[in-house]
Amino acid sequence: MKILVINTGSSSIKYELFDRQNNVRPASGLVEKIGEKTGIITHQAVLPEGNPVKIVEKGIIQDHHEGMNRIVDFITGSKCGVISDTRAISAVGHRVVHGGELFNSTTIIDQNVIAAIKKNIPLAPLHNPANLTGIEISKSIFPDALQVAVFDTAFHQTIPPDAFIYALPYSMYKKNRVRKYGFHGISHAYVCERGASYLKRTVSQMNFITIHLGNGASMAAVKKGKCIDTTMGMTPLAGLVMGTRSGDIDPAILVFMADHLKMSYKEIDLLLNKKSGLKGLCGTNDMREVIEKKNQGDEKAEIALKIYTYRIKKYIGAFFAALGTLDGVIFTAGIGENSPFVRALCCRGLEGLGIKIDHDKNISSSKKEREISPSGSKVKVLVIPTDEELKIAIETEKIIESYT
Amino acid sequence: MKILVINTGSSSIKYELFDRQNNVRPASGLVEKIGEKTGIITHQAVLPEGNPVKIVEKGIIQDHHEGMNRIVDFITGSKCGVISDTRAISAVGHRVVHGGELFNSTTIIDQNVIAAIKKNIPLAPLHNPANLTGIEISKSIFPDALQVAVFDTAFHQTIPPDAFIYALPYSMYKKNRVRKYGFHGISHAYVCERGASYLKRTVSQMNFITIHLGNGASMAAVKKGKCIDTTMGMTPLAGLVMGTRSGDIDPAILVFMADHLKMSYKEIDLLLNKKSGLKGLCGTNDMREVIEKKNQGDEKAEIALKIYTYRIKKYIGAFFAALGTLDGVIFTAGIGENSPFVRALCCRGLEGLGIKIDHDKNISSSKKEREISPSGSKVKVLVIPTDEELKIAIETEKIIESYT
Repeated sequence: MKILVINTGSSSIKYELFDRQNNVRPASGLVEKIGEKTGIITHQAVLPEGNPVKIVEKGIIQDHHEGMNRIVDFITGSKCGVISDTRAISAVGHRVVHGGELFNSTTIIDQNVIAAIKKNIPLAPLHNPANLTGIEISKSIFPDALQVAVFDTAFHQTIPPDAFIYALPYSMYKKNRVRKYGFHGISHAYVCERGASYLKRTVSQMNFITIHLGNGASMAAVKKGKCIDTTMGMTPLAGLVMGTRSGDIDPAILVFMADHLKMSYKEIDLLLNKKSGLKGLCGTNDMREVIEKKNQGDEKAEIALKIYTYRIKKYIGAFFAALGTLDGVIFTAGIGENSPFVRALCCRGLEGLGIKIDHDKNISSSKKEREISPSGSKVKVLVIPTDEELKIAIETEKIIESYT
Repeated sequence: MKILVINTGSSSIKYELFDRQNNVRPASGLVEKIGEKTGIITHQAVLPEGNPVKIVEKGIIQDHHEGMNRIVDFITGSKCGVISDTRAISAVGHRVVHGGELFNSTTIIDQNVIAAIKKNIPLAPLHNPANLTGIEISKSIFPDALQVAVFDTAFHQTIPPDAFIYALPYSMYKKNRVRKYGFHGISHAYVCERGASYLKRTVSQMNFITIHLGNGASMAAVKKGKCIDTTMGMTPLAGLVMGTRSGDIDPAILVFMADHLKMSYKEIDLLLNKKSGLKGLCGTNDMREVIEKKNQGDEKAEIALKIYTYRIKKYIGAFFAALGTLDGVIFTAGIGENSPFVRALCCRGLEGLGIKIDHDKNISSSKKEREISPSGSKVKVLVIPTDEELKIAIETEKIIESYT
């Protein structure tokens, strides 16, 4: 079965082709800056005879429809095609950011599902419209393929009301749907499964804290395979310090900004989402640069790192309390997978929770799933590379097999 | 030495007279609804011959000056006086809410201190002006007494930058003084000292988590006597769920309220401070009523209790992680001292942190300092009645003794 996985953003399409029978991923790529003068397509493939190719094309890509057609040209064309034509694709798995309270699992897309994703646009005004565009185009280009939605919020739908309802007037939840939803669910779910498998257990036997540290960052408390809490909230702004997002702050600071600094809510929104986090504190949102600056004696970079890791450490404690007992801590995504320094700071002083890191294991560079706690540790600390595209492909395959 | 302790609010004056030599508190009371038609003074005293009196007077009290004169009439008058005249008072200890970054301890009030309290008005627009009024009136009525400021923020000034700087543009801290300050410091400091004393230790030997649950509520992580983190933030809105305040929420919810619900920042401020918390969730901010409603099967009251206690539980875990090791958890203030049900829910499932509650000790009613953990527990769980007035009197006495 061949599955195309698509993640459509407001001006981008990320894609990957999976050949599940042969357990290979023949092609993948990214269409960027759609609608701008400086459009870019980066395509990579392993041709049927085994040769790898990488193509970068620049120039205007008018709209998402043209972007998708260019992808199809690549994967079916004579130059570097890996399948004969679009009908070879059985299903298209779409990453959809916001499923609201309507979806707690992967779903085959029909008109009701499209209507529901539309209904959630107020909750994800940037992401859901782009995801809908991706679905509509995909239906027209792959009319014979099943279209499947894999939601970034679905994994968090097991969070109980104690954790998802804010202490606001109750009508804010019932009428305005203001509640914690959580994001990065595809990644949190994937690394839980891989972590359990690495430890030769099933997720139903394990209590995990998963720490996804990319440019966006979030954590989840996962009790026997079910998410019971997460750091992001109604939106992806809450929780951890991120590349450009503040994470948690005293909500009254927004009132202070409006009242004393005369900022509009749009300016405040922009400041909290794009000018805060690591970037706001020390001028760059790239963790490698932050660490480099800190090593050169930059005080703001040092304090940014302390704030970043202290927040994570506190949430480890908070989620330990929520879980009651803990079997493993899993680091994933760009920073989580690649920064031993950040991992060490996050776990420093947590021996009282049974959490320890082995220095040598931690600093040894690897792209593999690995344990970085001392052997015999009560709580295993793991590094598990995330793979959201693979998780979407697996979910898509599963639902199709149960459907057909 | 006789010390008058004063806590001036925008329309109230809370006061208590301390006779430190004889370790008695001859008079105390509350002037309420100053400037309204329904002013009330409630005065209690123990007369020199030992008889207790309680007087309640109703009627207009024009302003704070009149309120303070009425207090003086009570404590010096022929009817129920406990001192001969105002000159018997050596010092007046003022509770001042916001000392900003300028005050990390109790201070004798001079013109510089008054200027500094004024400078902090933007950080505490309701409280600091009232405190200043109290100071000015007190200076005119007790010209011979030393005026002393005891700050609610001072105890939190040992919090390190990792915990007090928000992940916002750094200039927000440096230029606009946006940072975590913390409140209830007088109470957190007091119960730490009492808790250590109860356990026959000094605070410098103990790591405590203090949980102040009144109509306002906050927690502190106190490492060897020094506060290293607290739940309130730049303002008293952040952190725990309170009577009418939301505590922590995704900051983007304020943007959602402005953008989608077309609320002004003043409406948002009012909603988060006065219409949220327990009241927003289930209609009442009185914990006794919430528990009663829940016992009668009210689902919203039940969920409100779960949200309230789950937030505390998570912060216990977070502060455990911040402290590294923990010797004691201290409950205080109205709800903390009087609700075994709330205490039990907060600590349920925290055995992994060494925190346990003895059911019988917990439900046994008492007004005394007491332990409610099973004997021999690694982490002692204590109930310590708070006494902010006494702490202010002690602080005032200490600074005067070192000054004279």
